Amino acid sequence: MIQIGQTASISKKFSNQDLHDFAKLSLDFNPVHLDAEFAKETIFGKQVVHGMLASSLFSGLLGTHLPGEGTIYLGQDLKFKKPIFVDQEVTATVEVINIRKDKSIITLKAECRNDQDEVVIIGQAVVKYEMSA
Amino acid sequence: MIQIGQTASISKKFSNQDLHDFAKLSLDFNPVHLDAEFAKETIFGKQVVHGMLASSLFSGLLGTHLPGEGTIYLGQDLKFKKPIFVDQEVTATVEVINIRKDKSIITLKAECRNDQDEVVIIGQAVVKYEMSA
Repeated sequence: MIQIGQTASISKKFSNQDLHDFAKLSLDFNPVHLDAEFAKETIFGKQVVHGMLASSLFSGLLGTHLPGEGTIYLGQDLKFKKPIFVDQEVTATVEVINIRKDKSIITLKAECRNDQDEVVIIGQAVVKYEMSA
Repeated sequence: MIQIGQTASISKKFSNQDLHDFAKLSLDFNPVHLDAEFAKETIFGKQVVHGMLASSLFSGLLGTHLPGEGTIYLGQDLKFKKPIFVDQEVTATVEVINIRKDKSIITLKAECRNDQDEVVIIGQAVVKYEMSA
């Protein structure tokens, strides 16, 4: 049974190839993500992982871990707090913070941290999930 | 110069291969997206495009069209209103709704519509973008 406070986490390093693959899917060819030379001249100083790519780990967690298979994604809000760099480990965590049993709606805190344990993305996810009593 | 009311749009059909590619990136192997047989038994009746994959078109629009190169993505909220199906054309649109020149912050309405002109995703994007006077 799903309970308030329950969490699930997943970690991943995004490679340069991952950024190029995501660019093809999202049509986001912004050179700050893809071009090391260009990125060097930006405030970040190097290539940055697309925020929406890192955030997609929330989709993975919700759809396969918590609540898991059968989850219907209703909403997600995201704040991109700090850049995530290529090949830097990112850990995404979701935590159940509210359950509306009558509507089968679960709200989860969603957060990504970098390998320095700094919060890089923070937000909330809302999903529909049929709970057994 | 960027002005309130300005819009940019982009259309794309997500193929079955795109969904598998996105699953590898996001670790979202939820069979509702990837397995036609499984999806047939769900309320959707067929494979559904990952909401975060379709939403990634906003990243593409912001980073390459409006405001364009140099955009720093600060936040995005998303409501997934209706399913998007494989090979169905989706049109993502962003529209400038607020400009804070003093902080170089732009807020945009972000919306995806399907080929029936139904809103399937709606939300808001917030970006930082250095504007020339």
